[in-house]
Amino acid sequence: MKNLEEALGTETDEENNNQEREDQSETFHNKSPLLSDPWKPCQRPRAIVKEWLLKLSCCLGAVCGMEWYGFAALGVLMAFLSFLMDLSVTKLLRAHQWLYMKLEGNTLLQFFCWTLYPSCLCAVASSFSHNICPFSTGSGIPEVRTMLAGIEMPHYLSLTNMFTKFLGLICTLAAGSTVFLGKVGPFVHLSTMMGAYLSHLCSLIQANEKVKTDGEMLVVAAAVGVASCFGAPVSGVLFTVEVMCSHFALRHYVPCFFTATCGALTFRLLSVWSGDGETLQVLFKTNFPTVLPFYPLEILLFAFLGLLCGAVSCCYLFCHRWILQFTKTNPVMKMLTTEKGLYSGVVAFLLATVTFPHFTGQYMASKYTMKQLLTSLLDSRQWTSQSHNASVQLEPETLLEWSSSGSPVCLSLAFFLLMKMWMLVLACTLPVPSGYFMPVFVYGAALGRLLGEGVAYAFSTGVTSDQQRAAVNPGGYALAGAAALSGAVTHTLSPALLAIELTGQFSHSVPVLLATLLANALARSGHRPSFYDALSISKRLPHLPSLKKACPRLPSTPVGQVLGVKSVQLQKAAAPAEVQHAVNTSSETQIPVVDSHESGILLGFVLRSELLMFLRHSKAETPEKHLDEVCCIHPPSILLSPHNTVQEAHSILNLVGAQTLFVSDKGRLVGFITWTQMKKILEELAKEI
Amino acid sequence: MKNLEEALGTETDEENNNQEREDQSETFHNKSPLLSDPWKPCQRPRAIVKEWLLKLSCCLGAVCGMEWYGFAALGVLMAFLSFLMDLSVTKLLRAHQWLYMKLEGNTLLQFFCWTLYPSCLCAVASSFSHNICPFSTGSGIPEVRTMLAGIEMPHYLSLTNMFTKFLGLICTLAAGSTVFLGKVGPFVHLSTMMGAYLSHLCSLIQANEKVKTDGEMLVVAAAVGVASCFGAPVSGVLFTVEVMCSHFALRHYVPCFFTATCGALTFRLLSVWSGDGETLQVLFKTNFPTVLPFYPLEILLFAFLGLLCGAVSCCYLFCHRWILQFTKTNPVMKMLTTEKGLYSGVVAFLLATVTFPHFTGQYMASKYTMKQLLTSLLDSRQWTSQSHNASVQLEPETLLEWSSSGSPVCLSLAFFLLMKMWMLVLACTLPVPSGYFMPVFVYGAALGRLLGEGVAYAFSTGVTSDQQRAAVNPGGYALAGAAALSGAVTHTLSPALLAIELTGQFSHSVPVLLATLLANALARSGHRPSFYDALSISKRLPHLPSLKKACPRLPSTPVGQVLGVKSVQLQKAAAPAEVQHAVNTSSETQIPVVDSHESGILLGFVLRSELLMFLRHSKAETPEKHLDEVCCIHPPSILLSPHNTVQEAHSILNLVGAQTLFVSDKGRLVGFITWTQMKKILEELAKEI
Repeated sequence: MKNLEEALGTETDEENNNQEREDQSETFHNKSPLLSDPWKPCQRPRAIVKEWLLKLSCCLGAVCGMEWYGFAALGVLMAFLSFLMDLSVTKLLRAHQWLYMKLEGNTLLQFFCWTLYPSCLCAVASSFSHNICPFSTGSGIPEVRTMLAGIEMPHYLSLTNMFTKFLGLICTLAAGSTVFLGKVGPFVHLSTMMGAYLSHLCSLIQANEKVKTDGEMLVVAAAVGVASCFGAPVSGVLFTVEVMCSHFALRHYVPCFFTATCGALTFRLLSVWSGDGETLQVLFKTNFPTVLPFYPLEILLFAFLGLLCGAVSCCYLFCHRWILQFTKTNPVMKMLTTEKGLYSGVVAFLLATVTFPHFTGQYMASKYTMKQLLTSLLDSRQWTSQSHNASVQLEPETLLEWSSSGSPVCLSLAFFLLMKMWMLVLACTLPVPSGYFMPVFVYGAALGRLLGEGVAYAFSTGVTSDQQRAAVNPGGYALAGAAALSGAVTHTLSPALLAIELTGQFSHSVPVLLATLLANALARSGHRPSFYDALSISKRLPHLPSLKKACPRLPSTPVGQVLGVKSVQLQKAAAPAEVQHAVNTSSETQIPVVDSHESGILLGFVLRSELLMFLRHSKAETPEKHLDEVCCIHPPSILLSPHNTVQEAHSILNLVGAQTLFVSDKGRLVGFITWTQMKKILEELAKEI
Repeated sequence: MKNLEEALGTETDEENNNQEREDQSETFHNKSPLLSDPWKPCQRPRAIVKEWLLKLSCCLGAVCGMEWYGFAALGVLMAFLSFLMDLSVTKLLRAHQWLYMKLEGNTLLQFFCWTLYPSCLCAVASSFSHNICPFSTGSGIPEVRTMLAGIEMPHYLSLTNMFTKFLGLICTLAAGSTVFLGKVGPFVHLSTMMGAYLSHLCSLIQANEKVKTDGEMLVVAAAVGVASCFGAPVSGVLFTVEVMCSHFALRHYVPCFFTATCGALTFRLLSVWSGDGETLQVLFKTNFPTVLPFYPLEILLFAFLGLLCGAVSCCYLFCHRWILQFTKTNPVMKMLTTEKGLYSGVVAFLLATVTFPHFTGQYMASKYTMKQLLTSLLDSRQWTSQSHNASVQLEPETLLEWSSSGSPVCLSLAFFLLMKMWMLVLACTLPVPSGYFMPVFVYGAALGRLLGEGVAYAFSTGVTSDQQRAAVNPGGYALAGAAALSGAVTHTLSPALLAIELTGQFSHSVPVLLATLLANALARSGHRPSFYDALSISKRLPHLPSLKKACPRLPSTPVGQVLGVKSVQLQKAAAPAEVQHAVNTSSETQIPVVDSHESGILLGFVLRSELLMFLRHSKAETPEKHLDEVCCIHPPSILLSPHNTVQEAHSILNLVGAQTLFVSDKGRLVGFITWTQMKKILEELAKEI
C-alpha cells in the first residue's frame, strides 16, 4: 500500500520516530489529512486548492456518502479500461489478420506469421509480468477469493501489479484463439486493485468520518469486474455472492448492484459512442426464434446436456489438477518453467503450429477469434441439414470456417473438442496474466452445439413428412452447454445468468439454469475441488474453503492447537516498567489485560495508543500510577474457547469485523487471534497438505 | 408443530412421563422412528410397508441427500398450488364477468353485481381467516422475514394456517382489480409453511442422520414462493437474499436455485399442458422492438422516472404508515376493524362503487383484471399519437378500456393514478390474506406509462419532418416504472429482475436497473422504514432490522441490560440434590457449570439428558458422586460479554446456529441467551417504541 500512498502524494512524515507519530495521530485525529503538514512549498496555492476541494467534498457529501462516488467512479473507470482493452486487442488481432492475408500464397511465411506473432506476444507478456511484478500472472480469482475471505495480501493490490496485469493481459488476448485464453479473471483482479486504490482515496477524503470502506470496495470490485467485462450487471452481483467465503453480507448488496450497473451502463454506452451500434445492446447478438424457442420435451435433452457437461468438466478438472502437479514435480518441467519467457514462447508456438490453418487448424475453425467462435456457435440456424438440402437463408460466411476443410461440420466440431481439451489444459500452465473462464465457456458452447446439431439433424430427418413444424434451434444447446460447462468447472451458477445476459435470450433461461444445475451437481459430487480451488491449493493460498476441499478435517482443527506462543499480557496493576516492556515486545493494537499473572483471568484489553500516553504521563508524575488507574480497560467483545474450530474462528472474525478475538479457557487468557495470525495459521495448515 | 406430527402419524407416546421419555430418547436415538413402537395393530403389513419405504429411501439416498428430494418436491408442489390458484381465480373472475355481461342494459342490477360479488368474497375471506386462523391475514412477508432471522413462530407455520391462507387468498384474488390486491406475499408465506412441513417429513425419514434442514427449508421456500408464483427463478433467489436478516449463507445458494428452477419449470410446464401456449413462455408476453429498444439518451429519462417513482413511493409509504397508525388509534376505526367480516365487506363495497364502469370506473379501465391491466400498460405501441393520426397497426381491443369514456388516454391514466393511490392504501387495511406487491407493480407501470406516453408524444411531434426514426416505446417506461416503484416501496432490487423475467425483455435490463436503483436511493434516504418494515413495527414482530428503523439506538443496547433474571447454574462439585433442583427449575437443554458458586467462573455446560442420567445412577450408588466425576462438562463455544450489543448477539446466534450463548464478565457467568430469550428481548424492546 506504500506506493499507493506515495502516488497520492499524502504527506506521511517518515522521518519522525514512531512514538511521536503515534502521539500526533491522536491530536491530529479530527483534522483532514489534506489540511495537515505545513512544511511544503507553495503553501498559499496549495491551501486554496485544498479549501476548494474540501468545499467540493462537502457539497458532494451532502447528497450521499463519499463512498457512493467511489463506487460510481470504480464502475465508470473499469468500464473504460475494459473498453480500452477490447479496442487495443481488436487492433492487434486485425494487424495479425492483415499480415496473414498479405502473405497469401507463401505458406512458409504464413506459417511464421501465424506462429511467431502469438508466441512473441506470449513471451513478452510472460517476461514482462515476471520481471516487473510476478504476482500478476494467472487468473487472479483465487487471490481475489482469498482477499474477500478477509486475508490481507497487499502485494496483489499494488499499482505496479495493475499496470503489469493490464499490459500483460492485452498481449495474451492479442494472441487470440491460438492460445485460447480469456479476459474475465484478470479483469476481476484488476477491478479489485482499482477498488483498493479508490477506497484509499475515499478514506483520505473522509478521514474524519472513520468509515471503513476497504472490505466493501473489494467485494463491490469483484461484481464490477464481471459487469464491466461483459456489460452484465446481474451476473456480476451473483458472481460476487458466489466468491464470498461463507456468508454474503447484505450491506454489500446495494453497492454491488449500483456499481455493476454503472459499469455495465458505461461499457455499453462507450460501445454505442464508438459506433458499434445505435443503442445499448448485448455483447453477442443472437437471432433465436421468439415464437417457439424450444419444444417442451427438449427440456429432457437440455438436462442430458447438463449431465454431459458435468462429466466433461470432471475430466477437464482432473487433467488440470494432473498438469498442476506435473509441472511442480517433474524435474524437466520444473526446469522449463523457471525460464518463463522461453517456456511461454515455446508453448504458444506449439499451440499455434497445431492451429495453423493449412495444417490441422482447418478442421477446427482456427481463423476465428474467440468472439467470432462464440457468435458462430450461438447461431440459431441449423448447419447440418441445411447445408445439403435447403440453403435459402444460410449466409455463406457463417459456415465458412467450420466447413472450410470440406469435412462435415459435426466432424470439425468433434475434432475441435478433442484437440482443444489438451490445448486448453496446456495453455493453463502459461505464466501470463490470463483468464480461464471464457475458453471453457466457448468449449461448452461447442459441446452444446454438437449435441444440438445432432438433435436438429435427427429432428429434421424425422419430420420430413410433416414439414410444417419449426426446426430445432442448435444455438440454444450451445448456450446451455456454455453455461453448464463453465458453471461446472468453476462450481458456480452465475454463468447461467451470464449466458443469458451476454445474449439477451431470456426465452432459454429455464433450460440453461437446469443444465447448469445438473452439471454442477455432477461436478460437485465427491467434494472434488473446483478449478479455482485447485489453483488455490496449488499456490498454497490461505483460503479456507479451498483448503477444506483438499483436507476435509482441516477446518475442524481446534484453535487451541494452532495458537502458537502465548501472547504478551499485562496485569491490571502493571507498573510503567511492565507496560514499557509490553509495548516493546508486542506490535498488536490491542493488548490484553489480566487480573494478575497468577490467576490469569481476562479483564479486557487496552489500546496501544493509550499505553503510550500512559508511559509519557508516568514520566512526568512522581508517584507512579498503576495501569488501571489511568487507562480504560475495554471489555473484550467476543471470547472463543480453545475448543472452537479454525472454521468458527474464521467465520466470527469475518462476521464481527473484529481486529482481535481473545481466546480464554475457564476465564483465563490463552491467546488471541487476529487476521494476521489467521493467515499464518492457514498457511501453516496448507503446508501440511 | 404438534398437529404436523399427528398428521404424519408419528408414534409419540404422550402417556409416559417426562423422565422416562427423556431416558428412552437416549437409547432409541439411533433407530429410525418408523421402526420404533411395536404396540400398534396390523404389525405385519406395517412392517412390510416400512421396510419397503426404508429400502426406497436407501436407494434415493444413494443418489443424493434426502433433502434434495424435499427441495424438488417443494418446488413442484408450490408450482402446482400456484397453477391451481390461478386456475380457480380465472374461473371465478370469468363467472363475474359473465354475470355482469348478462345483465347488460340494467344498470342497477349491474351495479349490484359489480359491487356485491367482490364485497361478499372479501367478507367471506375475512371471516373465514379470522375464525379459523387469525394468523393467516395480511401479506405474511413480515412474518417470513422474522422467521428467516432465526425467530421461531410455530403459529405461522401450521397446516390450518396454510389451508386458511390458500382459500382466503383465492377469494381475495377473485375480487379482482376492484380490491386491487396481489398474490406474491401470501404465496411466499404458503411456501414457507409447505417448506416447514416437508422439512419435518425429511427429518423423519433421515432421523438417524441428524441433518438439520429446518432453517434451510425456510430460506429455500422463500425463493420458491416467488419463483413458482411468476415462473421467475433468478428473481426468486435474489428475493431470498434480500429478505435475509443481515447475512446470506452461501450453503443455501445452490438449494435456492435448484428449488426455484424446479418451481418455475413445473409452473411453466403446467401452463403448457393446460394449453396456454406451445412452449415454456414468460407470464406477460410483450412485443418490444428488438432492433432499437430505446435511444441512448433515453437513459436520462429512465433515471428521471426512477427518481419520480422514488418520490411517489415516499408518499405512498407515508400514507400507509398513517393509516396503520390511524386504524390503531382512532376509536371509530378500532371499533370497525373488530368486526372483520363486516369491515371487509364495507370497504370492498366502497372500492367497487368507485370502480363501477358506469360511474368513475370508466375513466380508470376498471373492467380489466390485474393481468390485463399490466399487459395493456406494457404494450409497446404508442397510444396518444397513433389514435389520431396513424391507426394502422393498432388493434382496437388494446385501447378499448383506457379510452372507453372518450377522454384522452393520458387523462385516464392520471385519474387512475390519483384514485388508486388512496384506494390502495385503504385496501391495505383489509384483514384478508393478500399481497401488496403486485398492486404497487401495476401502479408503477401506470406511472411509467404516463411518462412514456408523454415522451412518445413529444418525440413524435418533434420528428414530424423526419419520419424515418423509430418511435419511442412507452412500454419500456411502464416496465421500468413498475420495477422502480415496487422496488422503492419494498426497499429491494429484485423487482428489477422480476420485471425482466416476467416479460423476457432483456434489452431493457440496464434502464430498468438504473431506475430501480435511483428509486431505492430516494426511498431509503433518511432511514425511513420500508413497507414490510412498517408492517413489522405495527405488528410488533421481533424482527431486528425493522425495529432498527423505528428506533436506531435499539440494536446497540448492551446485552447486559436486557438479560433478565440470573439463570440456573450448577457448581462443579454439585451433589445429586442440587442437580435435582436445577433440573426441576430450568427447562433449558444446556445448563451452565461454574467452578463454585462463590467464584462463579464459567467452566462449560452439561446437557440436560446427562444430568437426568446422573440422577438415575446416583440413586443406585451409595457413596454419592459429584457432578464432575460422572458428567462430561462441555466447553462453551463462544462467550459474549455483557457489553456486547443485542445486534451482535443476534448475528452470532444466527451465524453459529448455536442454541445457547453464554455471557460472562471477567470469567464469571452472567447469563445466557437462547433464541427463545432473544425473541422475548426483542418483543420487550418493541413494546418500548
